[in-house]
Amino acid sequence: MPRRPCVTLITDFGTADHYAGTMKGVILNINPDVEIIDICHQIAPYDIFEAAYALLQSYRFFPPDTVHLVVVDPGVGTARRPILVSAGQYRFVAPDNGALSLLFTREENARVWHITADHYFLNPVSNTFHGRDIFAPVAGWLSRGLQEDKFGEQITDYVRFSSPRPKRVSENLLKGMILKVDSFGNLITNISPEDIPELFAENPPPFRIIINNQEITRLNLAYSLGAPSELFAIVGSSGFIEICTNRGSAAKILSANRGAEVGVVIGGGPSA
Amino acid sequence: MPRRPCVTLITDFGTADHYAGTMKGVILNINPDVEIIDICHQIAPYDIFEAAYALLQSYRFFPPDTVHLVVVDPGVGTARRPILVSAGQYRFVAPDNGALSLLFTREENARVWHITADHYFLNPVSNTFHGRDIFAPVAGWLSRGLQEDKFGEQITDYVRFSSPRPKRVSENLLKGMILKVDSFGNLITNISPEDIPELFAENPPPFRIIINNQEITRLNLAYSLGAPSELFAIVGSSGFIEICTNRGSAAKILSANRGAEVGVVIGGGPSA
Amino acid sequence: MPRRPCVTLITDFGTADHYAGTMKGVILNINPDVEIIDICHQIAPYDIFEAAYALLQSYRFFPPDTVHLVVVDPGVGTARRPILVSAGQYRFVAPDNGALSLLFTREENARVWHITADHYFLNPVSNTFHGRDIFAPVAGWLSRGLQEDKFGEQITDYVRFSSPRPKRVSENLLKGMILKVDSFGNLITNISPEDIPELFAENPPPFRIIINNQEITRLNLAYSLGAPSELFAIVGSSGFIEICTNRGSAAKILSANRGAEVGVVIGGGPSA
Repeated sequence: MPRRPCVTLITDFGTADHYAGTMKGVILNINPDVEIIDICHQIAPYDIFEAAYALLQSYRFFPPDTVHLVVVDPGVGTARRPILVSAGQYRFVAPDNGALSLLFTREENARVWHITADHYFLNPVSNTFHGRDIFAPVAGWLSRGLQEDKFGEQITDYVRFSSPRPKRVSENLLKGMILKVDSFGNLITNISPEDIPELFAENPPPFRIIINNQEITRLNLAYSLGAPSELFAIVGSSGFIEICTNRGSAAKILSANRGAEVGVVIGGGPSA
Repeated sequence: MPRRPCVTLITDFGTADHYAGTMKGVILNINPDVEIIDICHQIAPYDIFEAAYALLQSYRFFPPDTVHLVVVDPGVGTARRPILVSAGQYRFVAPDNGALSLLFTREENARVWHITADHYFLNPVSNTFHGRDIFAPVAGWLSRGLQEDKFGEQITDYVRFSSPRPKRVSENLLKGMILKVDSFGNLITNISPEDIPELFAENPPPFRIIINNQEITRLNLAYSLGAPSELFAIVGSSGFIEICTNRGSAAKILSANRGAEVGVVIGGGPSA
Repeated sequence: MPRRPCVTLITDFGTADHYAGTMKGVILNINPDVEIIDICHQIAPYDIFEAAYALLQSYRFFPPDTVHLVVVDPGVGTARRPILVSAGQYRFVAPDNGALSLLFTREENARVWHITADHYFLNPVSNTFHGRDIFAPVAGWLSRGLQEDKFGEQITDYVRFSSPRPKRVSENLLKGMILKVDSFGNLITNISPEDIPELFAENPPPFRIIINNQEITRLNLAYSLGAPSELFAIVGSSGFIEICTNRGSAAKILSANRGAEVGVVIGGGPSA
């Protein structure tokens, strides 16, 4: 164990209520040496995919042995299981509702346990706040170095949704989608440079990215290289192609939200 | 003293300014070993009751000896006193304006001191930011283990408002109110299961909860057991009865805010 | 070095994305003993001045040796330099875009280095998130006690804008401006008591502060001394004169934003 174990939090609890703070109290009460880091508490309410995305983008940057806690839990109080995952150098605690799906796509050797050892839970357990009563205590105990099998049986039938992948519809047309709109209004697609290697070759062909009937035809290396209100593509810090504008919101210009279709037409001809 | 003392913060400073961060700097400058935890900085401006509620719901979940700091302080710069409270395993620092009222209802043996020892304050003390200049330094020194009587004289005439309690208007009618609307839109009432034990008996009678002329007739065990946009009651993590809807905002459906009256009619007949 | 080094964060990343949390992971991965404190992540997007102001108001309240990290970086990915500053008891890391300008006005002996030692950066460095890939790692290494000259060459041609100063237009007229509107709606001017010592003399003359054609004629010692919706001036915790109203937003009453002109007419006559 490292000298100062870390626990991170991703929730949809917002920052206007006491919920996230109370979870931190529970964790510190179990492990006073832990460092608790907020990744995000403003996941849209009940939005499991957004939580999965925030985790995917952040977990690898934390110290080894960090415990990542994800609580977006519309099924709280029902039979949906609490799970514990060991993957790479990290451990994860979440409801079994798909919130770890994108993690599973990256960490193929993940092992998953169904958390049942209720002597680690707060007592009584409420029906509405398992973040406080189940997930936070388990994260606290994990951060003290407890082994996974103390918490329950290993399982393989955990919930996971498949990550939406871009499709090569024809030789010169790729169809993807918007995965995420960030708070700057950048549109993060599910398309990686590896999906369209032509555009990153030495002499790339012309291309058009089509979103809501508007065309983006430039690939820039930095946000500030764009002209005012010009839309352009960039390879973002997410590893995905993002649609941006310089000092403005591409989401507003394009009226585009998560899930919007993204077409990439490679070459100067019509898409076919 | 524990190895890593905790200080928590509840304020109405929001998160868009430097105010909360500056308070943390002051605390760390006095006690570099302290762990500072945000409970909430988005208390509605000047809303003492909301601060009192956030504290009530969270303070018991923190490690023993935690110092809880509450700064919602519309009277800053006037003669209102800064106070220090010892209650249960915790200590509390706040302006003497009622922000600790709900705490006092739960901790009957609370002792209260008027903070006057200005050699612990920053110098000079501003007229507008006692969070930085008085409350944060006192919390920092307390977290180092200083005794309460170093800070001033014990008092008994501190400000406290009485918590609004539900009333049994007749045998089959209870009247309470909405204490809090959380960021999900759940309406948290001031009614506990102990106030209407009939509903939690083995064969409970029918009931109607009436808010803004709308009726709620179901008690659920989990949010997700509700049909879409159906309103229902649940015993929440607060210990109070809450009015909710599955994956939506009960507050919007009912157009109800804090303070709204909540009637509970027990049995199938008319309320009388 | 102190036992628990501090790193603070000021960014325009907001709190709805994983960006700030990911930076913390990077810092903790380099220095697991560091304490990371959020000063503000809700700087308006790309607003370098607002970041400079938040830093000016907060940095001096942190423990000696704190590393202050400011990432408001519209030029990310271009040739704008990352810089490291040693000033007073602190060190600062930021893009070379003026975000440290107000600091420079207060700390005359600041020394500045151009950060070029890319073996301290994450690898690869993205074009869009130097907060994660360059600034956070440098802050992490600095917090471990590394000397400034490990990171690059000292420079003197760093970017700084001059802070807008009030002007004495005539004997009885001073013109300043609004520097900042805080989340309570208080209007913080760039006028200090030293700029208008007359008003703070023993028998001060009458005065009028004029903003958007409305006049403020009172100077109060505390917010709550104002009548409802009355506008008044106060010497704020910023050290500047602020325009306020009791339990309300002066910004709304005056329809005033940052940059609005503030006239101070001293004495009872017309301004001339």
